[in-house]
Amino acid sequence: MVSIAIHGGAGVITRSEMSDADEQAYRVDLGRALDAGYAVLESAGTSVDAVTAAVRVLEDSPLFNAGRGAVFNHEGVIELDASIMDGQTLKAGAVTGVRHVRNPVDLARLVMDRSPHVLLAGPGAEEFALEQGVELVASSYFFTERRWQQLEKARSGDRFSAAEIGYFGTVGAVAHDHDGNLAAATSTGGMTNKRWGRVGDSPIIGAGNYADNASCAVSATGSGEFFIRTVLAHEISSLIRYRGLSAAAAAREAVRGSLAGIGGDGGVIVVDRDGQVAMEFNTEGMFRGARDSSGRREVEIY
Amino acid sequence: MVSIAIHGGAGVITRSEMSDADEQAYRVDLGRALDAGYAVLESAGTSVDAVTAAVRVLEDSPLFNAGRGAVFNHEGVIELDASIMDGQTLKAGAVTGVRHVRNPVDLARLVMDRSPHVLLAGPGAEEFALEQGVELVASSYFFTERRWQQLEKARSGDRFSAAEIGYFGTVGAVAHDHDGNLAAATSTGGMTNKRWGRVGDSPIIGAGNYADNASCAVSATGSGEFFIRTVLAHEISSLIRYRGLSAAAAAREAVRGSLAGIGGDGGVIVVDRDGQVAMEFNTEGMFRGARDSSGRREVEIY
Repeated sequence: MVSIAIHGGAGVITRSEMSDADEQAYRVDLGRALDAGYAVLESAGTSVDAVTAAVRVLEDSPLFNAGRGAVFNHEGVIELDASIMDGQTLKAGAVTGVRHVRNPVDLARLVMDRSPHVLLAGPGAEEFALEQGVELVASSYFFTERRWQQLEKARSGDRFSAAEIGYFGTVGAVAHDHDGNLAAATSTGGMTNKRWGRVGDSPIIGAGNYADNASCAVSATGSGEFFIRTVLAHEISSLIRYRGLSAAAAAREAVRGSLAGIGGDGGVIVVDRDGQVAMEFNTEGMFRGARDSSGRREVEIY
Repeated sequence: MVSIAIHGGAGVITRSEMSDADEQAYRVDLGRALDAGYAVLESAGTSVDAVTAAVRVLEDSPLFNAGRGAVFNHEGVIELDASIMDGQTLKAGAVTGVRHVRNPVDLARLVMDRSPHVLLAGPGAEEFALEQGVELVASSYFFTERRWQQLEKARSGDRFSAAEIGYFGTVGAVAHDHDGNLAAATSTGGMTNKRWGRVGDSPIIGAGNYADNASCAVSATGSGEFFIRTVLAHEISSLIRYRGLSAAAAAREAVRGSLAGIGGDGGVIVVDRDGQVAMEFNTEGMFRGARDSSGRREVEIY
């Protein structure tokens, strides 16, 4: 069975706050991302290509906190993080703090495929992008009025509680392809009003992203620091490998046990080596979708 | 039993290449770091204070690739990474790409204690340092002639094989205190001739550093990308928690199994919740030491 799952962030706004039109817009873009990734799997493409395709759609949408539409940091700049991992080879690539890369997931992929490294940061990552022929874009490409207003609100209020606006909204995808290979990708703009070069869990292999054919592929979203401290994506893999849990049970234990145990909020999407998908969160909702070759296709928010 | 272990990097030069005088100098500084950390534990101090004290001594020594004596990147600049984790609270702090902080482990500690974040990068991390009253130092403080010559050699040769000079040399410490609390700290200058803002495993919680009172504290050193891909420090914790392995058996399986399985080189120091120390590596040697309240005190290289 080939399968894919995607997320567009956990937490989100409560059901009562979201208009029907907004909800419909989110569902459309989630569906487009899901179908873009599934199309790759359906035509016998790889899980790595499928998660890249899905995340690229979410990065291109202004609705999510990744690529276009990402949140602003304290200085009014958009800084993007992304990662990707191939469960067959355990190869991985990630970037943090890039400002001019339209699709950070593609740059993470280049780091994985064409460098001896896993994680590149800041201007150095953009230097690598240029050497690889990636065309940089002006930072105005990423601008949305909605995110700018969120920054202004965050700046005017208490720094850390207000900064939670847009804390969520990270995007990601996990997939299981026809060869049984797993992959995961995650992309984010981080926290609104973030300061001091803060790096969250999205570009951290083992925290916001992990894939290993021996267990599962995971992409996470939420209060990043808590995902780093619990090494949550790798913890789910460990629960599957060493305690024999299903993807659903491992995701539940990690999110409702380890993560919530230290005060963390958010969610994960998981696909295991049989192609079984689990989506778990301890927040009001999580933008998410799943599709597989058994005919399942769903897009959900709450 | 209180106990501490330290490392000053794995790989190192072969026994035949090291003079007696060099070896003696390494042994002296390793012993000083070990005793500085142990003194904290002996006077009923915390494991977090002990690992901080030990790593600070190694950062201040020009012999190791951390703090003073760190390697140069491709642009001839020294960029430092460090991390610390408290196994009692699972709190953690880390910095990457700082250029003017004398003791990066102290800054990682401030991130843990005085920010809501785990990982701060680049100039933002130094902005945070200044806000915390940390005095920055000129980059000339870190300069050593030996490292400069290594850079020139690396620059003149094949980029990636030559870059392995000084690939190792990361420092770290793990400790178990009289309250049974565990902690780990790791600090590095990364790879000689590193490019593109490359970040290794040292500041990545779960890869080069991890501590959890439920299992163990780990500090790693070696070919960082492979430690990130195997999430090696957290893997050792998982082997202890979920497969019931001893610290020694878990370290052996992780280093000789997972790490070596994908071509990684290096080593780890581990202390478990009973204060048992394990030191494992798959390289020619690892600068290391261990001391505990049973009277053990050893400093070894090969």
